[in-house]
Amino acid sequence: MLTNEHLFIKACRGLPTNRTPVWIMRQAGRYLPEYRAVREKVDFLTLCKTPELAAEVTVQPIDILGVDAAIIFSDILVLPEAMGMQLELVESKGPVFNEPIRSSGHIERLVKPDVREKLSYVIKAIEMTKETLRDRVPLIGFSGSPWTLAAYMVEGTGSKNFFNIKNLIYSEPKLAHKLLQMLSDLVADYLNDQIEAGCDAVQIFDTWGGILTPDDFKEFSLSYIEQIIKKVKDRNVPVIVFAKGTAHSLIDVAKSGCDVVGLDWTVDIGEARKLLYNKTAIQGNLDPVILFSTEKKIEEETEKILKKFGSGEGHIFNLGHGILPDTPVENAKFFVNAVKELSVKYHSTKETSAVF
Amino acid sequence: MLTNEHLFIKACRGLPTNRTPVWIMRQAGRYLPEYRAVREKVDFLTLCKTPELAAEVTVQPIDILGVDAAIIFSDILVLPEAMGMQLELVESKGPVFNEPIRSSGHIERLVKPDVREKLSYVIKAIEMTKETLRDRVPLIGFSGSPWTLAAYMVEGTGSKNFFNIKNLIYSEPKLAHKLLQMLSDLVADYLNDQIEAGCDAVQIFDTWGGILTPDDFKEFSLSYIEQIIKKVKDRNVPVIVFAKGTAHSLIDVAKSGCDVVGLDWTVDIGEARKLLYNKTAIQGNLDPVILFSTEKKIEEETEKILKKFGSGEGHIFNLGHGILPDTPVENAKFFVNAVKELSVKYHSTKETSAVF
Repeated sequence: MLTNEHLFIKACRGLPTNRTPVWIMRQAGRYLPEYRAVREKVDFLTLCKTPELAAEVTVQPIDILGVDAAIIFSDILVLPEAMGMQLELVESKGPVFNEPIRSSGHIERLVKPDVREKLSYVIKAIEMTKETLRDRVPLIGFSGSPWTLAAYMVEGTGSKNFFNIKNLIYSEPKLAHKLLQMLSDLVADYLNDQIEAGCDAVQIFDTWGGILTPDDFKEFSLSYIEQIIKKVKDRNVPVIVFAKGTAHSLIDVAKSGCDVVGLDWTVDIGEARKLLYNKTAIQGNLDPVILFSTEKKIEEETEKILKKFGSGEGHIFNLGHGILPDTPVENAKFFVNAVKELSVKYHSTKETSAVF
Repeated sequence: MLTNEHLFIKACRGLPTNRTPVWIMRQAGRYLPEYRAVREKVDFLTLCKTPELAAEVTVQPIDILGVDAAIIFSDILVLPEAMGMQLELVESKGPVFNEPIRSSGHIERLVKPDVREKLSYVIKAIEMTKETLRDRVPLIGFSGSPWTLAAYMVEGTGSKNFFNIKNLIYSEPKLAHKLLQMLSDLVADYLNDQIEAGCDAVQIFDTWGGILTPDDFKEFSLSYIEQIIKKVKDRNVPVIVFAKGTAHSLIDVAKSGCDVVGLDWTVDIGEARKLLYNKTAIQGNLDPVILFSTEKKIEEETEKILKKFGSGEGHIFNLGHGILPDTPVENAKFFVNAVKELSVKYHSTKETSAVF
């Protein structure tokens, strides 16, 4: 099957489909016994950096869950690592920077790497995954947004108040913009490299966009996402923007030039569709914790989201954030099947033209 | 001065004032050397439970910062403690429940206390504060919302994913409602006791309302806040609801019957005013991290919020969340003075009637 004929790609473009496609953020992850078996042999970062293994775990959920897209197994922090930041694994925390950026001198010392060379292991993993998948489902590439990468680089890890990165933008906005511009250029290169290696779509994760005021979100995060989208737009692959906690700026996110706006579970998808009608497709947005409850509840909440979105095209079903490490696999499977079965009635089998 | 003539109370009611009143969430706290001097003698919980000391630190920011309202020094978790939960202090984390609720049996074992008796130390602290203040400024009482209290009781402390409390509402909604109803009754009693003891206004903190979907926020948090407001409403004191991260439901919060809707910094106060026009007053919403930057930046951001709110009545200036422990006191003072000076031009000196 040509990639363009896949449900997921069609839905990204608002083209008619006979049901709603579904995939899951972090679908290649610890909740799968098959993933844990690979992780018993190597640590998380080694897994990211070993193309054979990264490709192997990328493909696992396609067979096990039956999702409609694969997403390359990697971590957003490999890009800052390629810029010279020391990435270390802390058990229970995941990868962290033990020497976060706390001075302009540190920003000066950052390297502007040849991304394709430094992150060749990601490119290789994409090529191997594409070969294994043989276009059964499309492959999604991804990057952190410049703002989210900067937040991790300055804080070192996640944070309660994000004091340091906020202090940087409030007290030294020019320096912050310098760092963000550098990241923006690299993210654009990185996504283009992923697309050239075979990715059929890309997602930009702005995990920490929601810690800012709406004005600062536009200035310090969204403006850079826009820049990046302009640079990859000619590649003719859908771009998804998932900016967690930014319900205040949905229309602005849609105007960034992306094809799909990702929603976390705190947004009413019906309201979002009204706002974004005929502008972009929408991805989301089941609360990941729902997958710990009963089949009845999973079915009810899946149906609720389908009903809120309503009939028509342009919805990619997903969770509102990454699947949690202890999620029962059976429930994840049940969820994927529920979307496949329950969504049929919201789609017309008649051939119609794209809604956007 | 009669309490009703105070700026803060007038602004809560949308009555004309000659400038915008200002107070700061957690204004009695670690950033003040005078507070730290008291804390050197006793631990946090002992401070909460010693009326003389609680009254002393409550009054400190009135003299030091010149804020327009006092808020009684206490902690929202003293109510669950009165229900039989063991509250313990963990350095760097604050008060936590080491034996969080993880079974229906534990909920059955909770005591429904005589709040006035069990929390007599809060009532006494309010009476002593009122005596010391002699109506220089109004005194605000407060409680956590039932949802936020339940979240702490079930999680034990703050949480990344709030897995346990969400699992409770998703898998055992009836049990969750039972706990929330019990809390709701107690919070209403508690706020009424605070008002009888002399509080001139009360604030309900729904710190964790924002972790829910909009529908679940209404069902599991806001409906109980509404119940509480109905029960305290006849006391003729303004009720402020601060539900962090619930920008998706501002109109619903306003419909709860509250007099003032508190905003965190992720809401554009201009947009909020349009939505809530003539419905309720608005409190907020400077990002607390701004107070670590320069005087110039503090002034700019204060002016920006005043300008976004625009001319007219019904704005109480505050931060968008509690002041951070390491905030420079000089900057907090500068902020309070900036509000006082910059806000004059947005108010008319002509006598006009209330806008709502």
